[in-house]
Amino acid sequence: MFRRVVIWCILISTLVEISFGSKVRHLRWEVEYMFGSPDCVELVVMGINGQFPGPTIRAKAGDTIAVELTNKLHTEGVVIHWHGIRQLGTPWADGTAAISQCAINPGETFLYRFKVDKPGTYLYHGHLGMQRSAGLYGSLIVEVGNGEKEPFHYDGEFNLLLSDWWHQSVQVQEVGLSSKPFRWVGEPQSLLINGRGQYNCSLAAHFSNSSAQQCKFRGNEQCRPVILPVLPNKTYRLRIASSTALASLNLAIGNHKMVVVEADGNYVQPFEVKDIDIYSGDSYSVLFTTNQDPSKNYWISVGVRGREPKTPQALSILNYQPTSASMLPSSPPPITPKWNDYNHSKSFSNKIFALMGSPQPPKTYQRRIILLNTQNTINGFTKWAINNISLTLPTTPYIGSIKFSLKTAFDQKSPPENFPDVYDVMKPPVNPNSTTGSGVYMLDLNTTVDVILQNANALSANVSEIHPWHLHGHDFWVLGYGEGKFSNKDEKKFNLKNPPLRNTAIIFPYGWTALRFVADNPGVWAFHCHIEPHLHMGMGVVFAEGVQHVHGIPNEALACGLTARTFMNDKGN
Amino acid sequence: MFRRVVIWCILISTLVEISFGSKVRHLRWEVEYMFGSPDCVELVVMGINGQFPGPTIRAKAGDTIAVELTNKLHTEGVVIHWHGIRQLGTPWADGTAAISQCAINPGETFLYRFKVDKPGTYLYHGHLGMQRSAGLYGSLIVEVGNGEKEPFHYDGEFNLLLSDWWHQSVQVQEVGLSSKPFRWVGEPQSLLINGRGQYNCSLAAHFSNSSAQQCKFRGNEQCRPVILPVLPNKTYRLRIASSTALASLNLAIGNHKMVVVEADGNYVQPFEVKDIDIYSGDSYSVLFTTNQDPSKNYWISVGVRGREPKTPQALSILNYQPTSASMLPSSPPPITPKWNDYNHSKSFSNKIFALMGSPQPPKTYQRRIILLNTQNTINGFTKWAINNISLTLPTTPYIGSIKFSLKTAFDQKSPPENFPDVYDVMKPPVNPNSTTGSGVYMLDLNTTVDVILQNANALSANVSEIHPWHLHGHDFWVLGYGEGKFSNKDEKKFNLKNPPLRNTAIIFPYGWTALRFVADNPGVWAFHCHIEPHLHMGMGVVFAEGVQHVHGIPNEALACGLTARTFMNDKGN
Repeated sequence: MFRRVVIWCILISTLVEISFGSKVRHLRWEVEYMFGSPDCVELVVMGINGQFPGPTIRAKAGDTIAVELTNKLHTEGVVIHWHGIRQLGTPWADGTAAISQCAINPGETFLYRFKVDKPGTYLYHGHLGMQRSAGLYGSLIVEVGNGEKEPFHYDGEFNLLLSDWWHQSVQVQEVGLSSKPFRWVGEPQSLLINGRGQYNCSLAAHFSNSSAQQCKFRGNEQCRPVILPVLPNKTYRLRIASSTALASLNLAIGNHKMVVVEADGNYVQPFEVKDIDIYSGDSYSVLFTTNQDPSKNYWISVGVRGREPKTPQALSILNYQPTSASMLPSSPPPITPKWNDYNHSKSFSNKIFALMGSPQPPKTYQRRIILLNTQNTINGFTKWAINNISLTLPTTPYIGSIKFSLKTAFDQKSPPENFPDVYDVMKPPVNPNSTTGSGVYMLDLNTTVDVILQNANALSANVSEIHPWHLHGHDFWVLGYGEGKFSNKDEKKFNLKNPPLRNTAIIFPYGWTALRFVADNPGVWAFHCHIEPHLHMGMGVVFAEGVQHVHGIPNEALACGLTARTFMNDKGN
Repeated sequence: MFRRVVIWCILISTLVEISFGSKVRHLRWEVEYMFGSPDCVELVVMGINGQFPGPTIRAKAGDTIAVELTNKLHTEGVVIHWHGIRQLGTPWADGTAAISQCAINPGETFLYRFKVDKPGTYLYHGHLGMQRSAGLYGSLIVEVGNGEKEPFHYDGEFNLLLSDWWHQSVQVQEVGLSSKPFRWVGEPQSLLINGRGQYNCSLAAHFSNSSAQQCKFRGNEQCRPVILPVLPNKTYRLRIASSTALASLNLAIGNHKMVVVEADGNYVQPFEVKDIDIYSGDSYSVLFTTNQDPSKNYWISVGVRGREPKTPQALSILNYQPTSASMLPSSPPPITPKWNDYNHSKSFSNKIFALMGSPQPPKTYQRRIILLNTQNTINGFTKWAINNISLTLPTTPYIGSIKFSLKTAFDQKSPPENFPDVYDVMKPPVNPNSTTGSGVYMLDLNTTVDVILQNANALSANVSEIHPWHLHGHDFWVLGYGEGKFSNKDEKKFNLKNPPLRNTAIIFPYGWTALRFVADNPGVWAFHCHIEPHLHMGMGVVFAEGVQHVHGIPNEALACGLTARTFMNDKGN
């Protein structure tokens, strides 16, 4: 009997192995600074295994990723966040310093081991200080599991990871943001496509009125343009993700339309666009068909949205084989929409719906948290605050301090669920009681939570910025966008039928965005503006749910602050 | 009976309090980056409590210093080494990352609590990565205990902390030193006196042939010159210490001779000089008498020794009161000796003897360690090696890994005690077996150890550099200097009568320096070239003695690496 059961077990587990074919993908990574010329200007960049951007991870849905990350920096800690991966059951692998783990010390190795359960286009990046801005990012692509099929057809695929780049060091940027008087980082010098841009020259100089000179490349430069070689009359999947520190972007392919099929690792109802908005933290898949004159090449251009751009567009070339890649396109690069054409942006966002058959949101919410986004001056420092509290991360990671009830580790008072009715979102902030804080929204496990992100006027009159908010540990449904101050009546406009599932959502100037998620993933999760300097200035909140159900946090994740002090043995030394 | 004892005890302890008057000096420090213009060019500097250089500590012999050091950096660890303080009984307070403690994490506080037992001129500085170069340093001055007297008279005193300054960030410098091909940091842009220098201008431009323009100051600039206001016909004590990253210096006062009375916190037989050599890590006290024309002011000038200088001399003004400080001296600044006038340097070093009554060295040694200093190429990286091993610090501090026998934490094989007889110190290195390593010289407690520092030719022919070697946890006697390769016959020339006690000693090009110390201070102690990039390139060794007698290491000092992993409880999580 026992033997028969064993044989059955072996058979079943073999079948599981065959049918899912899931693997553990072991990676050994070393993070260090290195010289690099992302936009043809040599600087120090943060690289992984000598590469910038870091290596692309490719896995299949159901696989386990095991990254042994060694910190080879001399004085800095490091963590890596796997953006878009929900970390079901592995909240300590979320890679958020001070939230899910202690930063990895110089010389030490931390094992990130987590399952990628859902196919899609993701990214990874640093989540300590502003190390993402320093170049610590890369792509994480999850293909459908063996035997599974994407709900669309394509003949080939490309991956574009977009970012922005400064010539001033991140260290100096950080000091400026934390100084009195405040010094802003300014607009990026370059936009990068797969870590490459061209400073002070343009591939398409002959089309532009600017004084930019023509870029000349022999082809082996680190900053050479990215070429996408295609065959005529095929359909390609273009994966696009943005790890910009600041810039909101728009991408267009000359003469080619695109069909959006995926957003943040979730399928969407296919829709056609001439250009696509990509905010920091967003990822998309689009399909395009090479149905144009095959004797020519075409520009792919990336421009800045939402802030008056001082950064030239980034260019890449769609190269119809066997045409030479060095033949520049004969028409000018597509001009991305005007930076402040918010109607264009809203129209795009409003076209995104979940693919039929996607999980639908619960019809009602159990808790509603309204988060007012304001820029404030606190003790002379310029900050962003949420319901008047600017987030300052504690020294001890919440995952440890909440689980083990170390109450002095962070502010025990919960942050407000709302803001005063009288607050005028159209005017500069009048909130004298702004403070910094480290309080947490404690969510009952499995609660359905609605979050209303409420935008407002910044410190200067007639300024309201866009902010892409990113949630860790969950996807949320984007129920709707609206203008002005949210009111309960707006609830009627919520899309409960086919709202898209995302991990990042924008709030438009002076507008609100309504999100819904189920707090079903035990852990502690950041929810924050994905603009790196904004997060640094306090623009985020922390959600915690079911932390008592979190088990097996590695010791290394807790070897700092109060958890280290509490759990280090008396060594009798 | 019991009551009488208690009363006696109270009386005695009161007397002790009165007779020694020793105090605990509590200090709360925060380390952070800030904008600063040390040499009139704005950059980011590492400061303490908003000051650069850090606050000067003044204490009396016998006092306890208690610095609560909070790391306010965003991503970097930090430690502070109290240079010249032997840390008797408190080896974990020595502030050497990876040796005496884990670096303090961002946001955390570490308590450095130690006794300053010996009057003298000391300094403190960062000892992680190249944070000293970034500006993390300050002065630590220990006056004689209450009721005690210095063995010399003076009417007033000044303190000059000398340093060198680069415009390239330390981060970029570090990457260059660790790159293939190697990129050297180059000569400093400026020399600083008490954190102030003048880049691209000279106070004494009208005396020089250079194209430097005249410096103009209103008096409130951060980079204004340091003024020493004096009264005529008085004797002043000038404390001088060097925390340079690279430069060997020489200081002279126009028209004034100096009498050297203290070196590295030890009294020396007074001797007169026109100028004084100060290597990185050195400290001195000199006396000078204001016996010159009181209607004039005089230059104090600091110039570079030992490397062909590309850095202008630093200037300060000796201001005879009531003459206006803004009246520039009428004679040119004293010209410090030619950079490669090593005879001048040797003559100075050979004039330093211990003041009569100073502790004398044991007449014999029990262990002799000969340390060959070579520049090497290891796997394509340019390094410095000692007996063919280039020091790479481990992740777990030795103080924990040795005490708790964590044998995988560092190389268990002891480094060599000597180098092959055939080695030609006059030629570029022929040592193909150079390696990196983390081995330790384990010293039996209370052993008398002789260290012979043997200089040699660097990688390029006909180059041999000077290196100031600094020992932690002890003073050593400098028994002598010699030319070429040390041989046992040289022992006869050792000065065993009145060798000076120091914590830093120079090796001259192609020469040797003999040191003796008693390994009587349980702990783990760095012994290294005090040139910051040289240490970074591996130019150091580690001594350990009586570590089993070390007790009470704070948990925070061990909350990293293998000690954290070993001593974190099973939390049952």
